[in-house]
Amino acid sequence: MNKRPPAFLSRWKCTCAYDGTHFNGFQSQEGGNTVQDLVERQLAKTFGAKIRIHGSGRTDSGVHARAQVFHFDAAWKHGADKLRVALQTGLPKSIRLTTLRKASPKFHARFDAKGKVYRYHIYLGMADPFTTAWCWSVPRELDWKAVEAAAKVLRGLHDFWAFSGENDRTYETTVRDLRRLDIRRRGRNVTFTFEADGFLYKMVRSLTGALVNVGLGKLTAAEITELLKTRKRIPAVQTAPPQGLFLEKVIY
Amino acid sequence: MNKRPPAFLSRWKCTCAYDGTHFNGFQSQEGGNTVQDLVERQLAKTFGAKIRIHGSGRTDSGVHARAQVFHFDAAWKHGADKLRVALQTGLPKSIRLTTLRKASPKFHARFDAKGKVYRYHIYLGMADPFTTAWCWSVPRELDWKAVEAAAKVLRGLHDFWAFSGENDRTYETTVRDLRRLDIRRRGRNVTFTFEADGFLYKMVRSLTGALVNVGLGKLTAAEITELLKTRKRIPAVQTAPPQGLFLEKVIY
Repeated sequence: MNKRPPAFLSRWKCTCAYDGTHFNGFQSQEGGNTVQDLVERQLAKTFGAKIRIHGSGRTDSGVHARAQVFHFDAAWKHGADKLRVALQTGLPKSIRLTTLRKASPKFHARFDAKGKVYRYHIYLGMADPFTTAWCWSVPRELDWKAVEAAAKVLRGLHDFWAFSGENDRTYETTVRDLRRLDIRRRGRNVTFTFEADGFLYKMVRSLTGALVNVGLGKLTAAEITELLKTRKRIPAVQTAPPQGLFLEKVIY
Repeated sequence: MNKRPPAFLSRWKCTCAYDGTHFNGFQSQEGGNTVQDLVERQLAKTFGAKIRIHGSGRTDSGVHARAQVFHFDAAWKHGADKLRVALQTGLPKSIRLTTLRKASPKFHARFDAKGKVYRYHIYLGMADPFTTAWCWSVPRELDWKAVEAAAKVLRGLHDFWAFSGENDRTYETTVRDLRRLDIRRRGRNVTFTFEADGFLYKMVRSLTGALVNVGLGKLTAAEITELLKTRKRIPAVQTAPPQGLFLEKVIY
């Protein structure tokens, strides 16, 4: 993947935001209707040739991004902003190309990523019609002391196998460094912020579901310590729904 | 309309919020798909009979509400909150019944309204995918001194004929008391707040379009003074798009 492209091509690094509500995730897959499909369709229109984009990683169906990053190679002579505008023109409002610039020919959106930041938004109660698409409505108050104790257990370097999706465990390792797990509360709005060197499939939603269940008294910090050791997923590690999840930043 | 209902009926006052994006407005009309249609469908399911609701007024296709008010008459024995939940159950997430309570049998959502508050949200630039459905993206900076001067002219008791929709001027009078027109700016987010004893058809969107055109140098405060006198609508009184408009409050 890191082979240097021919001289007349440049490597472009693009940051984009998307409302994932109506997409089957970021990455192309059978069934289509992904962010990648729409961006590549517009690249084909602009350049008259198929150009592949390479994302920093996938996001699941219904998950949003404030700053997903992808790269592609293309020969363009008219400046970065004109290219950004040309590509944006054919995209729906749910996808916004926020920045586009030339990168080193060696830059790779996925392999160069040093870490990622995700946020998960929870509303304690029933969210109004204007925020319901961006959060998980949890109808009961949580035990915040218990949630904090569980968060403390989860922070750091662990084997997160018990907090990954069931259908896709093809990783070389399931050890990740959860460098940050912040809990912020403002009134009924709760935000969990996760930063790690990398995330497993459905890891943030599994961690969120587990933390909420700790807050509801269905799971304890001690049990979470056990899960990190035993690597066995249990039903109380619930997968939180996708609409509350945002990919906030890819760190290079 | 103010005829007292039979003794076994109660009059109910309901406050609701809705995301108007995919509705043909609040009030029933040919073509269906209105907020009223959905609420009445759920009332019919709950009571087994057609029950009409009476809104404080209509909102246009694509316009939102944080607190629209309607009333209806129904015989219900199980408490207000149980009725609210029964009605909410059959409604999409885009409609939220926030409060429901018994009102005086003489209460009328439309005739008893003493005023209304609307807010119009503008984003200076291109809004991100998460706010684009709730604002008007205006690509250029505005001349705020000129906008403030125009707002000063508009505040108070005037004949707003020149700021109402073209197809529906069947009012007894087009004089309204614009008691409040506030402009608040935070970074690129601008909010106009309008309060009046009542509003003409498309009045808030026409005032907003005119104010923005003043900010863009296409209209002046002096011309607005003229429009209030001459009662002639001109193209610079543009109708702002619906998605930025919220009915915030009905005052009783």
